[in-house]
Amino acid sequence: MYEVEIKVQAAHEEVRSKLDEQGATRLERVLQTDTYYDAPHRDFKATDEALRIRREHNRDADTLIHQLTYKGPRIDDNSKTRIEHEMEIDAPSTMDAILLALGFEPAATVEKLRRRYRLEAYTITLDAVTDLGEFVEIETAVESKAAVPAARSQAFEHCRSLGLDPDEQLTTSYLGLLK
Amino acid sequence: MYEVEIKVQAAHEEVRSKLDEQGATRLERVLQTDTYYDAPHRDFKATDEALRIRREHNRDADTLIHQLTYKGPRIDDNSKTRIEHEMEIDAPSTMDAILLALGFEPAATVEKLRRRYRLEAYTITLDAVTDLGEFVEIETAVESKAAVPAARSQAFEHCRSLGLDPDEQLTTSYLGLLK
Repeated sequence: MYEVEIKVQAAHEEVRSKLDEQGATRLERVLQTDTYYDAPHRDFKATDEALRIRREHNRDADTLIHQLTYKGPRIDDNSKTRIEHEMEIDAPSTMDAILLALGFEPAATVEKLRRRYRLEAYTITLDAVTDLGEFVEIETAVESKAAVPAARSQAFEHCRSLGLDPDEQLTTSYLGLLK
Repeated sequence: MYEVEIKVQAAHEEVRSKLDEQGATRLERVLQTDTYYDAPHRDFKATDEALRIRREHNRDADTLIHQLTYKGPRIDDNSKTRIEHEMEIDAPSTMDAILLALGFEPAATVEKLRRRYRLEAYTITLDAVTDLGEFVEIETAVESKAAVPAARSQAFEHCRSLGLDPDEQLTTSYLGLLK
C-alpha cells in the first residue's frame, strides 16, 4: 500500500465551502491528543521513529478511544511510506506507567481538532492544531508504486480545486513543526 | 499497588484438601503462557525487572485474554513484593510487533496450568509449571507500603495453616527457576 499525501497550511472556512460545493461527504469530527515519548536507548528524532499514545474523542458520537502507535522510519526518500503498528488500548494510564517504568518519557503533546471529508477516492482532512493553526491534508492510498504518479497528480488537482497551492505543501509532521 | 506473595514448592493434593476444609472458594482454572522480553537498554536480570505478554486460556469458561505486564524490582528481601503494572490487550501480535520494533526481544516462555482459590483477602494459587513441577502461591495486594508487613505476616499464617513452611519460600520466579 502506498500512501499519497499532500499537506498545506490553509484557513478552513473557504475550503469547507468548496468541499460542500463539490459534494464531499462530511465524516466525523474528533479531538486527538497525542503524547509522544522519547526512548531511553535511541534518539527517535535521529532514527525517524515515533511512539505515541493517542486519545481520540469523537465529538459527534461522544465516544473516547486510546491507541498506542509505533511509526518506523521512512522506507525510502521518494515516498512517505513507513511501517506503522497501531493498537487500541483500554488502559492508557497503565500503558503510560509501563512506558515510564521502562525509561520512556513523554516529550511532547500534539492536540488537534480534526474533521474528515470523503471526496471520491480521497480523504480530505481539516486539522486545527493547537499553537500551530489550520491545515488541510489530501490523502489516498494506492496498491502499486506504478499508480503513485497518477494519484499524486489527481491529489494536486483536488488541492487546486479547493483553492490551495500544491507547491506550498509541507513534509514536516505537526510534532516537527511544533518543535 | 504492592503485591505481597509467598511461593513454596509443594504437591497439590494435600493443599487442595486443606483449602476445601477451610472453605476456600475454588476459582477458575487457566493455562497461562508467558513470553518474557529482554530490553535493549537494560539487563532485566540485573535490575530485577520483567516485561511479559501473557496469554491466558480459561479452561472453565473457554475464554482467551492477553495481558501486558511490567514488574518492577523487589522492594524488600522478605517476600516478592514489587510494583506491578498490568493491562489487558486486545492485539497481542501488534504489541509484540511494537516491542520488537523498539528493540525488545522475546527471551523465554513459561507455561503453567493454574488453579486459583479465594481465602479471605488472599488468593491461593496452585501452579503446575511445565518442566518445573507443582507450586503454591499465597498472594494479596495492598495500597500502601505501610500495609505490607501486616499483609505479609497474615500470608505466613495462611501458609502454615495449609501445612506449608513459609521458611521454604522461594523468591526466584518461575522464569529464574527455569534458567
